[in-house]
Amino acid sequence: MSLKTGTPRADGYHMPAEWAPHTRTWMLWPERPDSWRAGAEPAQTAFRAVVAAIARFEPVTVGTSQAQFLNASEQLSDIPGVTVIELSSDDVWMRDCGPTFVIDDKGSLAAVDWDFNAWGGHDGGLYPTWDIDSQVARKVAQLEGVARYATPGFVLEGGSIHVDGEGTLITTAECLLHRNRNPRLSQGEIETYLRDYLAVDTIIWLPEGMFNDETDGHVDNFCCFVAPGEVLLCWTDDAKDPNYSRCRAALEVLEASHDAKGRTLRVHTIPIPAPLYAILESEGGAVGQVPDEHGRPERLAASYVNFLIVNGGIVMPGFDDPMDAVARDTLERLFPEREVVMVPGGEILLGGGNIHCITQQQPRPSGA
Amino acid sequence: MSLKTGTPRADGYHMPAEWAPHTRTWMLWPERPDSWRAGAEPAQTAFRAVVAAIARFEPVTVGTSQAQFLNASEQLSDIPGVTVIELSSDDVWMRDCGPTFVIDDKGSLAAVDWDFNAWGGHDGGLYPTWDIDSQVARKVAQLEGVARYATPGFVLEGGSIHVDGEGTLITTAECLLHRNRNPRLSQGEIETYLRDYLAVDTIIWLPEGMFNDETDGHVDNFCCFVAPGEVLLCWTDDAKDPNYSRCRAALEVLEASHDAKGRTLRVHTIPIPAPLYAILESEGGAVGQVPDEHGRPERLAASYVNFLIVNGGIVMPGFDDPMDAVARDTLERLFPEREVVMVPGGEILLGGGNIHCITQQQPRPSGA
Repeated sequence: MSLKTGTPRADGYHMPAEWAPHTRTWMLWPERPDSWRAGAEPAQTAFRAVVAAIARFEPVTVGTSQAQFLNASEQLSDIPGVTVIELSSDDVWMRDCGPTFVIDDKGSLAAVDWDFNAWGGHDGGLYPTWDIDSQVARKVAQLEGVARYATPGFVLEGGSIHVDGEGTLITTAECLLHRNRNPRLSQGEIETYLRDYLAVDTIIWLPEGMFNDETDGHVDNFCCFVAPGEVLLCWTDDAKDPNYSRCRAALEVLEASHDAKGRTLRVHTIPIPAPLYAILESEGGAVGQVPDEHGRPERLAASYVNFLIVNGGIVMPGFDDPMDAVARDTLERLFPEREVVMVPGGEILLGGGNIHCITQQQPRPSGA
Repeated sequence: MSLKTGTPRADGYHMPAEWAPHTRTWMLWPERPDSWRAGAEPAQTAFRAVVAAIARFEPVTVGTSQAQFLNASEQLSDIPGVTVIELSSDDVWMRDCGPTFVIDDKGSLAAVDWDFNAWGGHDGGLYPTWDIDSQVARKVAQLEGVARYATPGFVLEGGSIHVDGEGTLITTAECLLHRNRNPRLSQGEIETYLRDYLAVDTIIWLPEGMFNDETDGHVDNFCCFVAPGEVLLCWTDDAKDPNYSRCRAALEVLEASHDAKGRTLRVHTIPIPAPLYAILESEGGAVGQVPDEHGRPERLAASYVNFLIVNGGIVMPGFDDPMDAVARDTLERLFPEREVVMVPGGEILLGGGNIHCITQQQPRPSGA
């Protein structure tokens, strides 16, 4: 299918909420040795569990490099509903390098192919080249045979936005206004892109995301919609946690906001797990904590909000933490019609994200 | 979809004739510098013309390496009905490394994934490693979500067989009984594989294929079915042409054969183009002929039989030869319901094959 000129909004498309029906979920397969320890084998085990959890609810397509094709095919071969295909990438973050799907009211699907610069390019980005990631959205669009809208000159990652499907978008200023994303664009110009390509009307700007999130505070690790007019926000009552002020600042914005339908927002909260730190593992088996720039252990941006809504289910990360049960209860209460499946999230967190970051839902247009 | 045990025949599948309706044609994109001169650019132009010709009649999916994905996507972007996807290979010979599709009567499609050894492995094979080619059939099967039958220990290329879809197969002893394919299997054991995996009953063994065909005489460059009970055979009346005796030996076999329905075969002939030789091109523009092992110019195995039947059409190679018109007339007479499109075949021939070799049809099961 062709590259479309014009904008999705002008052509009648909008981005639906994540809870709208899906055709499938897209994922990528971990391999990169500087992202994943021990030959990526622990990560592959963790991803396999995520794939299996999602596949209980909807089909999953997993893209791999040529080198990993047979390995991934074999590892995932016993999970019904999973398709392994060759689809190379620089790493696994399908949420961020993949397309954002939009639908219209006539049963048609299209893909938004944002510019991608690996979360900051050469000014704080997370790996030095990203040209293979940059082709992922186009590859997915061509595989699905759907029209593609590119945004040359406008950088965005899918994890930096959440929508309610009814005209409202939440994001963080920390990420979208960062100098390493779109420094030549004003906040208003950035909003115009969001309005034109996702068909949203109201944009809610949280100041920051989670502390020490290397994506520069992606909203999908901090706050999400759970229903029209309802959001879920990470929360801590520990005043010494650097997330304490971030949570309160976000709450203040959310409580003062109206969505595109004029509703005030009902804000639910979900606890943050106890601080988790990156562990350095040597070949000899000795371990030590990875120091941050001040020589202190590097805090990982663990968050239960980094879950994926699938058809009839929720796939959420667990961290072997006492808060796991509280977080699961929270999601079960907020999504009473869905089955909540918790999957170990620690290994994925070590690589830099979690379940929402490594997935991208393909909505099923009504009438399709 | 799973790897199937058992055989296609036992599960109700058979290989349909090439003239049965197709869902699409699969191709691969040329890149390999030791197969294709001048950075493969002339070959890419030639392949583009083949893609465009087929796409007039049915959808075409073209697999490329990661490195060539954007180039191929751009070069083919203006041809409606073409899908470019990432699907790596060692070279372009989808007929030989791709799956052989089989169908059943209930609308179901499956893929036979033959062992592949690059036309002879380390004993006369055409390139030294073929592990990426060996994954192509599985990749295609997974992309289509169809069951796959593998034949570990049995080597076959799709170009070494033709079927009438009614129980008859033609092949050449030169290829299928070559010591570099299945030296541990008897002719009878090889026939059992063909019967079990393609659901054929009668196997017609031509002694040889075209002279100097580096595939060891693939039948698809020499003789094919054009209708039930009718075959088309390359022909020369030049007694000095090394193909002279090959053509006559094949004719003798064909005239003595009955097909699976008990019919004698009607044998049509098509001329061979005037001898073509490989040209060595230097960067300075000087050209010379590539010598064979005797210091004589290397004869290329040019053949008009290396065409593809598509939905409503025939896509055939031309060689800038006076026989082009005769060959086209022959196919127009044999396929009066189909439009015959001739595409320049010289550059593809230089790489070692022609239009049938670089394509693989995906039949459309009735009821699907």
